[in-house]
Amino acid sequence: MNSADLGRRVGVPSTALFTDQYELTMVQAALKAGTADRRSVFEAFTRRLPEGRRYGVVAGTGRVLDAVENFHFDDEMLTFLRDQRIVDSPTVDWLADYRFSGDIWGYPEGEVYFPGSPLLRVEGSFAECVLLETVILSILNHDSAIAAAASRMSAAAGGRRLIEMGARRTHELSAVASARAAYIGGFHTTSDLAAGFRYNIPTVGTSAHAFTLLHDSERDAFRAQVDSLGRGTSLLVDTYDVTEAVRTAVEVAGPELGAVRIDSGDLLLVAHRVRQQLDELGATETKIVVTSDLDEYAIASLAAAPVDAYGVGTQLVTGSGHPTCSMVYKLVARARSADPADPLLPVVKKSLGAKSSRGGRKWAARRLDEAGVAEAEVIGSGEVPPELVDRQMLVELVRGGEVVGREPLETARERHVAARAGLPMSAMQLSRGEPVLPTEYV
Amino acid sequence: MNSADLGRRVGVPSTALFTDQYELTMVQAALKAGTADRRSVFEAFTRRLPEGRRYGVVAGTGRVLDAVENFHFDDEMLTFLRDQRIVDSPTVDWLADYRFSGDIWGYPEGEVYFPGSPLLRVEGSFAECVLLETVILSILNHDSAIAAAASRMSAAAGGRRLIEMGARRTHELSAVASARAAYIGGFHTTSDLAAGFRYNIPTVGTSAHAFTLLHDSERDAFRAQVDSLGRGTSLLVDTYDVTEAVRTAVEVAGPELGAVRIDSGDLLLVAHRVRQQLDELGATETKIVVTSDLDEYAIASLAAAPVDAYGVGTQLVTGSGHPTCSMVYKLVARARSADPADPLLPVVKKSLGAKSSRGGRKWAARRLDEAGVAEAEVIGSGEVPPELVDRQMLVELVRGGEVVGREPLETARERHVAARAGLPMSAMQLSRGEPVLPTEYV
Repeated sequence: MNSADLGRRVGVPSTALFTDQYELTMVQAALKAGTADRRSVFEAFTRRLPEGRRYGVVAGTGRVLDAVENFHFDDEMLTFLRDQRIVDSPTVDWLADYRFSGDIWGYPEGEVYFPGSPLLRVEGSFAECVLLETVILSILNHDSAIAAAASRMSAAAGGRRLIEMGARRTHELSAVASARAAYIGGFHTTSDLAAGFRYNIPTVGTSAHAFTLLHDSERDAFRAQVDSLGRGTSLLVDTYDVTEAVRTAVEVAGPELGAVRIDSGDLLLVAHRVRQQLDELGATETKIVVTSDLDEYAIASLAAAPVDAYGVGTQLVTGSGHPTCSMVYKLVARARSADPADPLLPVVKKSLGAKSSRGGRKWAARRLDEAGVAEAEVIGSGEVPPELVDRQMLVELVRGGEVVGREPLETARERHVAARAGLPMSAMQLSRGEPVLPTEYV
Repeated sequence: MNSADLGRRVGVPSTALFTDQYELTMVQAALKAGTADRRSVFEAFTRRLPEGRRYGVVAGTGRVLDAVENFHFDDEMLTFLRDQRIVDSPTVDWLADYRFSGDIWGYPEGEVYFPGSPLLRVEGSFAECVLLETVILSILNHDSAIAAAASRMSAAAGGRRLIEMGARRTHELSAVASARAAYIGGFHTTSDLAAGFRYNIPTVGTSAHAFTLLHDSERDAFRAQVDSLGRGTSLLVDTYDVTEAVRTAVEVAGPELGAVRIDSGDLLLVAHRVRQQLDELGATETKIVVTSDLDEYAIASLAAAPVDAYGVGTQLVTGSGHPTCSMVYKLVARARSADPADPLLPVVKKSLGAKSSRGGRKWAARRLDEAGVAEAEVIGSGEVPPELVDRQMLVELVRGGEVVGREPLETARERHVAARAGLPMSAMQLSRGEPVLPTEYV
């Protein structure tokens, strides 16, 4: 694989403080008690999908790998922990040498998932694994929420182009991760330059209303834009009167005009009118881009409109009503020592009326029906039944602290298309429903 | 002011690519057309509050100042822009020298705001101002959404302690900004170490269920924790049976036990039972912390419960149903040249059925009634009426490119308490309603 496919390795600060304090205090107490090195298995999973959603989409795995690699405490951080008395001196010394040395397996990025799916299985000593809880969950909970929304939007858009343009509606770095997750979920381009820079996602963008308002007339603005960006550019036609603007646009750029963008009004109606006008003006190849508070339902409702591309912002980067997943990271098994020969004991929280989950180190497999369509997500902690051995979901991501599962973003993007296509048809319905695959525990 | 109050200046990458591509292409076209240096005024504002909310909370201003200071293109970024042909060569050269040299005024951080409030007014050349659009909106839209949720939760909590613990539910850097915004909105502490490191926000945290499950018995776990963290620690008592755990906790730590934490179940009922049990065991000073999917309504419903502190995660960092504000950044006035003597002309988008706003460079003032309670947010673009001169909302933040409005986080936090206290009482109601102050345009 060409290393450029993996995106640009930008210098990032250590991820070691993207951590809840209790992880460090647990390490301190476990070090003192002599239990810190007990062999342990943690799993990241979700007890349920967001209400009404039929499948989840794994995204963020690649960022998790970066985060695990960059998880180390520098001198300034160690001084902070010592000065603020967050942990004691032996713990600070232990943290100074910290590097994750264990193994991580997980669902590959772009896969779909269901309640209970062990999305990530992290194995090593208790102390080294527990430290990764927050940063792993931050990444998976955020990125998977965006990818799930993107996937629904891409299903609704059919083959039409989808532009991610939500950077302004979310934290500036969340925006970069959102563009990445949206790309995995089926978007084609992003407006966010940092996402282009970091992840090689194609970037797009031409002009805003401010550009028209800067100039003394709409014609001046269009001429300035076409002079500089060429006839293939996209002109924004709803600053004043759309019909007038479309006429001016074609006069200025000629019928070779690349596209017009409509950012307000009744998009269905306006798109039809603009298409007719463009065709009458001979601009039959000029595309129509719409960009006004779209979500998957609005996209679907425009299926019959002559729209060539959708720009989606707010609803994409806020997960279309579900801005986070409810993934948790739980200790599911541990030994009584660091000895690999010491057996792993399943553990599980058991309080009454509580959030329940299943103990034990788990595998997962997707069972297909006779037609080759997925029919169940099978999860177990014993032997994998022979007929499911080839249908296992988890892949190796980190081996003995070394990242082995890095892959190009395109691979995750393609995997998502294939994974979604392997689900029962009802997965693609936008209406609320149950998870499209049942989770079976064996 | 002590510079330590401003938090730690951590090395951050440039913010210049937290930018939508169209900002750069507009600069290119305006440079070519000779309009890039037209004196311009942009304003950030919101057309409406999230549905049912009675006031907004300004947060992120301090981060905006950092972002403006760090907005410069380094060689690697310029190479990217050139290689990807995002802009032409003269524009790349212009960007290489970019530093914002204009003026910024705005609502100070922690203030409340209403529809139309000019939260930030950015003045300079068109090109230098338009470039800041996305990063300014990303920060304000995100941080203000979190601060608004935090403010409602702090109103609901009365004087009780609020712990921000949502890092795992949002992007890892969004989490740091969320902790900061929550602190402004009235939270007391955070679990997020990066927020403590960067912003000096007090951090807390002791242990998770994993720590109990790591050990061979709950008693072993409690003993390990108390041995290491002291009797003042907070023990998590809902891994198995709460009553049993509370008894064990007090046996192990003695009545000096700092706190118990309950993370599941019927919190109202359980808190009462645990309080009674603790009192019977002589642990009358032991605090009760609850941390299970809380939002402002759950917090309010626990007002009669013997709870000492609330830990809030998901609903805080996702803005309690409103994960973003709908702030926009619009060109509101511009001259025909760079000449300061050339008059500013108000500009405004005017298309039918469109998102309307008001042109002109604006001031804002909060009018009080005779009792000194706020009664209207008054916004205008002409002369400020004499009786409102002393009630103006905008303060100077950047002068000629130099940041002059930096302030300690505590100042913003205290300002928010005062600002909220100055609103009509109905501002504090959690139920849905109209903005508590009307916006008046003069």
